[in-house]
Amino acid sequence: MAELFKVLTLDEARAVITRHLPGKRAGVVVPIMESLDRCLAAEVRGVDDVPAFNRSTVDGYAVKAKDTYGASDGTPSYLDVGGEVLIGQAPSGQVKMGQAWYIATGGMLPAGADAVVMVEYTEELDSRTIGINRPVAPGENVIRRGEDIAAGEVALTAGHRVRPQDLGLLSSIGITEVEVAFKTRVGIISTGDELINPQEKPYPGQIRDINSYVLYGAVADSGGVPRLYGIVPDDYDKMRMILERALGENDMVLISGGSSVGARDIVFKVIAAAGKPGVIFHGISVKPGKPTAGAFIGSKPLFGLPGHPASALVIFELLVAPLLRKGAYPACAEDFAMEFPVKAVITRSLHSAAGREEYIRIKLKVKEGQLFAEPVLGKSGLINTMIKADGLARIPSGKEGVEAGEMVEVKLF
Amino acid sequence: MAELFKVLTLDEARAVITRHLPGKRAGVVVPIMESLDRCLAAEVRGVDDVPAFNRSTVDGYAVKAKDTYGASDGTPSYLDVGGEVLIGQAPSGQVKMGQAWYIATGGMLPAGADAVVMVEYTEELDSRTIGINRPVAPGENVIRRGEDIAAGEVALTAGHRVRPQDLGLLSSIGITEVEVAFKTRVGIISTGDELINPQEKPYPGQIRDINSYVLYGAVADSGGVPRLYGIVPDDYDKMRMILERALGENDMVLISGGSSVGARDIVFKVIAAAGKPGVIFHGISVKPGKPTAGAFIGSKPLFGLPGHPASALVIFELLVAPLLRKGAYPACAEDFAMEFPVKAVITRSLHSAAGREEYIRIKLKVKEGQLFAEPVLGKSGLINTMIKADGLARIPSGKEGVEAGEMVEVKLF
Repeated sequence: MAELFKVLTLDEARAVITRHLPGKRAGVVVPIMESLDRCLAAEVRGVDDVPAFNRSTVDGYAVKAKDTYGASDGTPSYLDVGGEVLIGQAPSGQVKMGQAWYIATGGMLPAGADAVVMVEYTEELDSRTIGINRPVAPGENVIRRGEDIAAGEVALTAGHRVRPQDLGLLSSIGITEVEVAFKTRVGIISTGDELINPQEKPYPGQIRDINSYVLYGAVADSGGVPRLYGIVPDDYDKMRMILERALGENDMVLISGGSSVGARDIVFKVIAAAGKPGVIFHGISVKPGKPTAGAFIGSKPLFGLPGHPASALVIFELLVAPLLRKGAYPACAEDFAMEFPVKAVITRSLHSAAGREEYIRIKLKVKEGQLFAEPVLGKSGLINTMIKADGLARIPSGKEGVEAGEMVEVKLF
Repeated sequence: MAELFKVLTLDEARAVITRHLPGKRAGVVVPIMESLDRCLAAEVRGVDDVPAFNRSTVDGYAVKAKDTYGASDGTPSYLDVGGEVLIGQAPSGQVKMGQAWYIATGGMLPAGADAVVMVEYTEELDSRTIGINRPVAPGENVIRRGEDIAAGEVALTAGHRVRPQDLGLLSSIGITEVEVAFKTRVGIISTGDELINPQEKPYPGQIRDINSYVLYGAVADSGGVPRLYGIVPDDYDKMRMILERALGENDMVLISGGSSVGARDIVFKVIAAAGKPGVIFHGISVKPGKPTAGAFIGSKPLFGLPGHPASALVIFELLVAPLLRKGAYPACAEDFAMEFPVKAVITRSLHSAAGREEYIRIKLKVKEGQLFAEPVLGKSGLINTMIKADGLARIPSGKEGVEAGEMVEVKLF
């Protein structure tokens, strides 16, 4: 059965997943503070101009810029103080030719004024007259009406993940609720006759389940809602029953393991029989992580992840996390390059088979301002290599390894 | 009053904050799944050896390595199949000289065996004999007992922030609860007579509060528990009353604004009068963000942040976020270098005054595999420059700017 499916590259696997993803789903409306770190289900547009008036960015005097032209320390421009702008209020009059109005940072520019002179460049001659030592250009030290967001302008796009500054933007335009994408519910199943729960004491031959907890954390960190279905024995009927339940109760399901060839066969048979359209790939040319299977059951993605914890987490980061974070896949190669934004010098040479991508667990060190990536060597059956690592370095499939001293691209955990 | 305090560099401000921080505080015990993204209050050590037995990392045959020496395609080593290791169970016997036991990935190595030959390098002659085409070294394809974590070994250090893989490590050693640091409660106060709440409609001269919501998100994203105290007018007595309440109810307080010089003076007077040891700096040589004040009231940090939203968020990222994330400051220059791990080519020349650090809002672009940082120009009174930006590029204080084409260090939002 396995032989019917081609081993895909990572990019091919991403493309075929993207083709099977359902279209836009309805979102849920939440108060803006609950939208943090979630993706907008619809774009947000400015309601009114922000700010609603021309605003001073400094403490100083609102003036007509042309009244300051030619001003210098030696030949100041003398202007009459026409009034003072009170913070939070409309000015009580307008700036006439030859006049200056005192204005504090954030104050509303009076009609007639088109710039603000910083108080540092003025001197008070008496209570009614100031000297200006430096000219200002029209618009200087002023935030124009609508300069932050204009009415009707797209403020945030659909799919955008809400960051702290976006909350500020939303509040600035008077929006207190937004529609965000539903959190993806992810069912997590571990398989393997050797596995026991963490609170149990292992008999010889048994080990405690690692992948359920790694994947729980990875799903939660990526913005999904994880739900554990525990350890299922290497038994077709039991696995099929649990998988059906998990598919019914979630939007996506991850099965990890089993580690042995027999267990892997059962997992794959259960995945292949779970429904239509079914398996879309079986095996990817990525190390670690080759024994990965992908399927769609209706519109729900179903992944068979490797049993080795390091492999399972690498594949999760590359294939699954983007689905949870964006609700859709990186659309282009440019986005993919952004996944590995850190450049570091690798500290030892590593061999890699051409024709597959390799992801090396690395520890970052800084020496004289330069970042170095030190490979954390160790079997992918160990969890501790992922503990010691700060991130993953990528060796593209076209290369047969890297030489010590070469630059590599790194993604941080 | 302001003149009594020196303007500090960012490093000096960090150092003086670190000196005033209280020592270790007691933590709280939570189930491991709730410890995700929180900091451990105490180190965690291995309880038993993980794995508790020598474990095969492949499907194949457990052998004595020396029985395979010299084996090749032309001259295979012939071994008797002594038995099969069942997954999750202790082997029913031991491997004798000249014997091989079938073992699946994850199986427990039988006594007498010291390596596993991958099934790909064996051929079955009959049900009781196999030929081995390639020699193995002792330990090959085996995870040794305790190789992941040995009993008593430090598995995770105090202060470590729990990641998904750490949950896996904890479950592997049978730990279901850990002690994590309390989440820092942070009171947030906005000041400014021009501010109104987001659900209100501004009169001329008024704008909606931005900083409360930006800081709410920033505190939550850094692992703290934000609590908003709303907008306080530029009035000494009212501000003092709210600050006292916020200090009583939180572990840290942030006051942002007011934007005008009069409002800033009131904020600073209130901070200076809030208690002992009091103000530790007033002004930092960072752009944007100069009008920042730091104080300690007892063991509680109190920050007066700039009124401009972009400035407030930059200072939050540099000074406040590390306190919330780690419960303590980066201890050394190496950690600081790690804050700006991304290197990108800046796309335009920018001037910067020597003697102060500058943080430029930038948008990242990828072109032919190279990262470019495009400055997002705009006044720091605008929120939209922070919306358009992907992160901050640093111009060190020793430099008088950067030239287009130079490498800059970037921190992503």
